[in-house]
Amino acid sequence: MNANASLTTPDAIRALIRSGEYSANTSGLAPGFVQANLVILGQSYAYDFLRFCQLNPQACPLLGQTDAGAVTLDALAKNLDLRSDLPRYRVFEHGQLVSEPTDVSDIWRDDLVSFLIGCSFSFEEALLADDIDVRNISENKNVPMYVTNIPCQSAGPFAGNMVVSMRPMTPKDAIRAIQICSRYPKVHGAPVHFGDPQAIGIADINAPEFGDAVTIKDGEVPVFWACGVTPQVAISNARPDFCITHSPGHMLVLDIKNTSLATF
Amino acid sequence: MNANASLTTPDAIRALIRSGEYSANTSGLAPGFVQANLVILGQSYAYDFLRFCQLNPQACPLLGQTDAGAVTLDALAKNLDLRSDLPRYRVFEHGQLVSEPTDVSDIWRDDLVSFLIGCSFSFEEALLADDIDVRNISENKNVPMYVTNIPCQSAGPFAGNMVVSMRPMTPKDAIRAIQICSRYPKVHGAPVHFGDPQAIGIADINAPEFGDAVTIKDGEVPVFWACGVTPQVAISNARPDFCITHSPGHMLVLDIKNTSLATF
Repeated sequence: MNANASLTTPDAIRALIRSGEYSANTSGLAPGFVQANLVILGQSYAYDFLRFCQLNPQACPLLGQTDAGAVTLDALAKNLDLRSDLPRYRVFEHGQLVSEPTDVSDIWRDDLVSFLIGCSFSFEEALLADDIDVRNISENKNVPMYVTNIPCQSAGPFAGNMVVSMRPMTPKDAIRAIQICSRYPKVHGAPVHFGDPQAIGIADINAPEFGDAVTIKDGEVPVFWACGVTPQVAISNARPDFCITHSPGHMLVLDIKNTSLATF
Repeated sequence: MNANASLTTPDAIRALIRSGEYSANTSGLAPGFVQANLVILGQSYAYDFLRFCQLNPQACPLLGQTDAGAVTLDALAKNLDLRSDLPRYRVFEHGQLVSEPTDVSDIWRDDLVSFLIGCSFSFEEALLADDIDVRNISENKNVPMYVTNIPCQSAGPFAGNMVVSMRPMTPKDAIRAIQICSRYPKVHGAPVHFGDPQAIGIADINAPEFGDAVTIKDGEVPVFWACGVTPQVAISNARPDFCITHSPGHMLVLDIKNTSLATF
């Protein structure tokens, strides 16, 4: 297999990652294919976490979930091994980050349930395809993310406020972005707010809690999407004894295409 | 026929109007059914006006047009007589308003072509159905309309800037309104702008060129839709020797339902 092929097809990328030869972030890999957030919890937490996702679908749009102990999910990716097919993981014990390994086979347990959650990469690709400037991409930064005052619906121990990502746009582009993203409810869907940051509890648009600040040009308004960091905040509030997630930006590359997620 | 029935079914309403027994505005009549703007021009202007509509579909969404001289349009309304089935018309000569009759049979010409253009009543009904406050309705006013600095694409003598209508909303409701209205391109579709009025050449949001100012509440932003007054401005610029339109608010009630215009 040559290097070019290994970075363009999802199964080749996963094989390269599994072999340990690739441990960087997955941004820009396998254009056109869905990349997913990963959350792995013990089965005793599974029902409450699944309920949290279903109650807060814009922040936690579920692409799929496994049976307890399973490391495969054929409907989304063939020959998958969830223990090794992401370039980097984060391991939490009682809400504390304890390690960031490239493989979690050695700490795998038969009671673990994996949740795959949609990621903004998919809708950003749809925006770019329509020539809408995605500022975090054009400025080569991590998207700015903010904790809002919008409460999530809680489920068991999982609770917290919604985290949003922000992309500045002209109103004209924002209207088009709302149309485009409305077609993709499985990857956060339409924005949840635009304009005044304080209206959703954001004190300083230039000081995001996660990611990097980006330039807001004259005539642009900030546009806010529900963000996949929301479940991570809910998990840190729940403090489960054990939890594995992807490391930020180090996503699971799936076999399904972004276009397949469009609802119309 | 009792009074109640005469104000609920489109054909009964048209019959009542044709008989001369009803000449008021059509707001609120025949809920669920499409009402249309009407423009009637001599055939020598028909190609350029049709081209103007097709070049500016958000401002001039065409529901249908007739053969020269025809007063019927079966696809949109049965037993139609375009000379008498609107409660009030406006007659223009060389761009000047010369009369506002309730019937134009006496001035009808065999070369006249009629254009039916979608109206905001249809999308306002869809917004109300989703419990979005439509301020001009809740304040019982005419929707405020403004001439913008957004140029229409011109066609022959038909030219001018886009006229927009404005409805203030919270950003959350505006996002939902964009989703709802995107389904209805035949009745102006999605908004063309939100927020800063000056960005589209509106100097004073409280001084609309047409209609009435409405209250903009704290936390709301003005949301702007392309407006069916746009073709009237283009016609007044073109100064055709002869033209008939509906009188504002006195629309043609059609047999087709608003829901039938939804594209998905």
